[in-house]
Amino acid sequence: MKITELLSPQKIAIIGASADRRRAGNIILRNLKEHYDVYPVNPLRDEIEGLKCYRSINEIEDEIDWAIISLPAEKSIDAMKSCVEKGVKLAIIIAGGFGEAGREEQQEELKKIAGNKCRIMGPNTVGMLLPHVKLNTVFIPGIKFLDGNIAFLAQSGSIGVILMEEMAKEGLGISLFAGLGNRIDVDENEFLDFLEKDEKTEVISLYLESFSDARGFFMKCREISVKKPVILLKAGNNKKSSRAIMSHTGKISSISPGLLKDIMVQNGVVEAHDLEEIVDFSKVFSRYKKSDGGRIAIITSAGGLGVIATDYISRHNELSMAKLDKTTVDKLSRVMPSFASCNNPIDLTADVTNEMYGSAIEIVGNCSNVDMVLCLLQFHPSKVDGNLIPIIEDVSRRIEKPVFYCINGMEEEKLADVKKSILVYPTIRRAMRAMNALAFRSRWLKKSSYVQIGKEHYGNCNPAGLLRRYGIKIPEHCIIENESEIENIKLNFPVACKVHSSKVYHKTDVGGVYLNIKNKEELRNAFLKLKEKFNEKVEVQSMVDGFEFIVGTTHHEELGDIIMCGAGGVMAEVYMDTSFRMLPVSKEDAEEMVRELKISPIFNGYRKIKVNKDRVTRAIMAVSEIACRCGINFEINPLVVNEQDAFAVDIKLLPDKKEVVVAHPYS
Amino acid sequence: MKITELLSPQKIAIIGASADRRRAGNIILRNLKEHYDVYPVNPLRDEIEGLKCYRSINEIEDEIDWAIISLPAEKSIDAMKSCVEKGVKLAIIIAGGFGEAGREEQQEELKKIAGNKCRIMGPNTVGMLLPHVKLNTVFIPGIKFLDGNIAFLAQSGSIGVILMEEMAKEGLGISLFAGLGNRIDVDENEFLDFLEKDEKTEVISLYLESFSDARGFFMKCREISVKKPVILLKAGNNKKSSRAIMSHTGKISSISPGLLKDIMVQNGVVEAHDLEEIVDFSKVFSRYKKSDGGRIAIITSAGGLGVIATDYISRHNELSMAKLDKTTVDKLSRVMPSFASCNNPIDLTADVTNEMYGSAIEIVGNCSNVDMVLCLLQFHPSKVDGNLIPIIEDVSRRIEKPVFYCINGMEEEKLADVKKSILVYPTIRRAMRAMNALAFRSRWLKKSSYVQIGKEHYGNCNPAGLLRRYGIKIPEHCIIENESEIENIKLNFPVACKVHSSKVYHKTDVGGVYLNIKNKEELRNAFLKLKEKFNEKVEVQSMVDGFEFIVGTTHHEELGDIIMCGAGGVMAEVYMDTSFRMLPVSKEDAEEMVRELKISPIFNGYRKIKVNKDRVTRAIMAVSEIACRCGINFEINPLVVNEQDAFAVDIKLLPDKKEVVVAHPYS
Repeated sequence: MKITELLSPQKIAIIGASADRRRAGNIILRNLKEHYDVYPVNPLRDEIEGLKCYRSINEIEDEIDWAIISLPAEKSIDAMKSCVEKGVKLAIIIAGGFGEAGREEQQEELKKIAGNKCRIMGPNTVGMLLPHVKLNTVFIPGIKFLDGNIAFLAQSGSIGVILMEEMAKEGLGISLFAGLGNRIDVDENEFLDFLEKDEKTEVISLYLESFSDARGFFMKCREISVKKPVILLKAGNNKKSSRAIMSHTGKISSISPGLLKDIMVQNGVVEAHDLEEIVDFSKVFSRYKKSDGGRIAIITSAGGLGVIATDYISRHNELSMAKLDKTTVDKLSRVMPSFASCNNPIDLTADVTNEMYGSAIEIVGNCSNVDMVLCLLQFHPSKVDGNLIPIIEDVSRRIEKPVFYCINGMEEEKLADVKKSILVYPTIRRAMRAMNALAFRSRWLKKSSYVQIGKEHYGNCNPAGLLRRYGIKIPEHCIIENESEIENIKLNFPVACKVHSSKVYHKTDVGGVYLNIKNKEELRNAFLKLKEKFNEKVEVQSMVDGFEFIVGTTHHEELGDIIMCGAGGVMAEVYMDTSFRMLPVSKEDAEEMVRELKISPIFNGYRKIKVNKDRVTRAIMAVSEIACRCGINFEINPLVVNEQDAFAVDIKLLPDKKEVVVAHPYS
Repeated sequence: MKITELLSPQKIAIIGASADRRRAGNIILRNLKEHYDVYPVNPLRDEIEGLKCYRSINEIEDEIDWAIISLPAEKSIDAMKSCVEKGVKLAIIIAGGFGEAGREEQQEELKKIAGNKCRIMGPNTVGMLLPHVKLNTVFIPGIKFLDGNIAFLAQSGSIGVILMEEMAKEGLGISLFAGLGNRIDVDENEFLDFLEKDEKTEVISLYLESFSDARGFFMKCREISVKKPVILLKAGNNKKSSRAIMSHTGKISSISPGLLKDIMVQNGVVEAHDLEEIVDFSKVFSRYKKSDGGRIAIITSAGGLGVIATDYISRHNELSMAKLDKTTVDKLSRVMPSFASCNNPIDLTADVTNEMYGSAIEIVGNCSNVDMVLCLLQFHPSKVDGNLIPIIEDVSRRIEKPVFYCINGMEEEKLADVKKSILVYPTIRRAMRAMNALAFRSRWLKKSSYVQIGKEHYGNCNPAGLLRRYGIKIPEHCIIENESEIENIKLNFPVACKVHSSKVYHKTDVGGVYLNIKNKEELRNAFLKLKEKFNEKVEVQSMVDGFEFIVGTTHHEELGDIIMCGAGGVMAEVYMDTSFRMLPVSKEDAEEMVRELKISPIFNGYRKIKVNKDRVTRAIMAVSEIACRCGINFEINPLVVNEQDAFAVDIKLLPDKKEVVVAHPYS
């Protein structure tokens, strides 16, 4: 049975129920007993918390939906056996001390016992929580949480608890929380299937230290993101933290942070960098699903705050300063103090009144060049008082665009109250991050649907023809074996001369390439040197002018086939100027990859360099289609692009998809 | 008189005193009247707030130290005149509507009136505040602030007020606050002179939108930073925010964010990126002046938090994970739960007790490989309770290293109390940023003193000799005018051939360079083409192999002479891979500049490329010394560096220090 069908239990057994109020087996019992039929199991007790206690689960006469196993690791295995015998549908195993402690075998044993008869949550899980049906198996006492529209999946129980409390402080409620733990059976992907359809859930947030099935995860996110925002904090970015993860949840991911970031962008997953951002992004998405874009109008009465906020906008790639139209500026100037600045950022100065704030928000919110409003409110100016609140509540409701607030000078208790009706962030930085997240998703939603290249195309493949169709040229060239062939070569000089062998990968590094050969005499010299050094065939190729890129595909052990585009040459490698996507890519993906390159200012013309951006985009699409249709992984390196053309100067077929070592930092 | 001598007024006149409790001229009066001799001035009143009111300042019989002018801009000018007549020593002018509103003339008039008789704060200032002597001229009513050791200078009054309140919330107090406003007379540099010596002040924080005298500011900071931490938030990083600044405080800076960052690093100024960081950094420095380094030990009971914190460390260049020695790990393993991880990050698991937290902090704090401890406390585990607090207070006191805390699951009121005795940050991110700031200053303090090249060296200059002394080579070369000279050239081929003229700057861009010339025939062709195109002399130079850099100096209008080092070539330009310092630089500066380059992995050997790092450092020092001694600005571009040598392949003298346009983004 899928988790989707298992989330409405009635009868729940607690194996390892306890009378000690500080122990998990007691806390869970008390959480549940007023709302569910709870069956404590403990051979040493007749009764716990007023309920009849059973010696073993098999003694229970009723059918049991869920069993919560609150026993040490060693004993959990036997308990699992009894659950299977009893016909329990889902077992939640709390104990740590399995895979994360190096005990893979015991974990495997649990899986084997459960077979396809009983599903497992955990082990090493903090439990599950569905506030609207009061289903709380989390063994931490007294957690403060609210019922709401945010689902939260976490591999770490403590992180889950901390976040539910942080969300509650901000007035945010959850529809479901699940601690995934070591995740030997039920995983995040299965929960996503449920959450995609769950009507209570409008926002999905995840804390993961690794993926159960990364490609499956992102394919699912791509589907879900169209309907509901998905926010992910993926922890464990480096060797040190991976080691920490190993002893925490027992599995590490081989996806580098740079690669992961790109894959999230492709699939519409909103990246959170820390717990604060999970809260902040959940907050905005629980209220607004999207905006028209990222053009921000800033309203403040403190000029300095306007300056700081403007600085922040330049640091966020999805955001820009809205350019107010003349009508808006005119309207503003009629309601503002005479010395105030009516341009964005709008500075109402210390002469601001409650009414001015309200009017300014309304006027700016109705400007068609504005997608979101950031209002930096201050209660310090002498003409501003508590009557401002109903004014801004009212105007925020009437404006259809997202309005973000940062408020200074208000008492904490009042602030907590205001947060219920308007979107308040504690700092400009955090508001800005949330606006950026909203703008990212909004832009992603505007993309057309993704390409799918079906299996039927496999084998139906003509790489050279496809390159041609995409307008990618191959420079004039020939392959020679003997010195005597040089005389007959008809290529235009200058030419390049390089060793032609599948055994030599980094040709330049090993002295296997001569460039800028101007005549046949020089060519002969180069040929003889290569022949002597490598004793292989030699390729002679007309030189083409342009800027170097690299475009290639590879097989990633977690993400499947991926494509990479980067600036060429050693410097770009050191600067790690690359962009990645899962295969296949759409035209929009390819365009976005090109835009993401740090070298991208070059496309606008830099010094004397002119590079045709569209040719790079087409090369990415060509490589994507060839890789998918032919079932091969290969790279064009270098792809030389000038103002008119792109040339595939060197094409390398990667011999084995799964074990190839590639030049560029694919992961 | 300097501001240093003016900060102990006794008799203060308030020109524009008001009976309206909402107006500045009343608020300031009430702030001061119980602690100072206050003289309200208002021609329409006989008495205000129980004090005799004067028709004009000249009617006051006593000598007046300070006058606060709380009048509109137009009337402030006349009031200024009366202040000078009365012999007032300092006038604080509140009104906006001067330079920031395009009224430079009126501002100039104020300066002229004051001459050298009366000092001016403002105009457009919120006032000044010295809590320990209850001197409060800030016209915002009911600001919450505490007396303490942090001085805060702000160009924006609202920012000042917001920050004082934020600091108070965190239990941080101020020694002085000054709103600098349009800063036509008294400026930040003058306040720094006072704060350097002020015994109350242990930390100096600044919010600036521009500099009164940038070079002077940073030279002063360099002196002060040795004794007291200086924290700076410089707002206005881009065109849009500069426009906002123009209408806010009336002056913008031409120092780009990248340049500014480097100059701050050089002079020991701690960079804050937003208001939050001013508070967070002020907080750590108000307690700890430095650490031994940036090696962090993390202690937590929530594995996930340990993973997140470890990720953060890798994103902060001053921080690294401490490697615990065996003794420490052994000691830890004796006090921790059996399944807990004794390696850094230390995960005490949900089985943690109060005592375990205390012991772990103490053991780790005594490890000689640890410079700071980050403790991520959770009150959720069932064996942790309020008794933990005295334990960690005690251990934090005893350990001589900085201990940072993040606390989850504690009530806000209790938390506020705990903050008084230990260093608590609300999120891991913020704690990490503060640790990074502390580590930055600590590293800076370890540098030896800065070089000063005295004026006496000017003119005593032999550029070629200095280059040689620093081991920088100049490739073999000659200059030719006529084709006939080619026959006699004795250089080793291949050679480069380039136009030799001070009129041609970007030689490559205009087709003025031929490279890799292999013989005299090719040289002749190249020479004739250059001759035809430019009709100038031609330089012939032996080609040298290596990686290209650029090192040069220029005159910056605000910072004076500065030096730049960058990777060479167009790609490095696009990637903006450069590092800057004010001249002259020490060896440590030069080393740091090289380390800051994004290309720096190349120095460890990359593919087949080997670059001698020390030669690049020496080139920077050579250029610095030549520029200073000879009073010239010039650049070596390219500086070609290989495993053994550095070659100054092309040296360009910048003809005019102040108006030169340079290739690289100097600003």
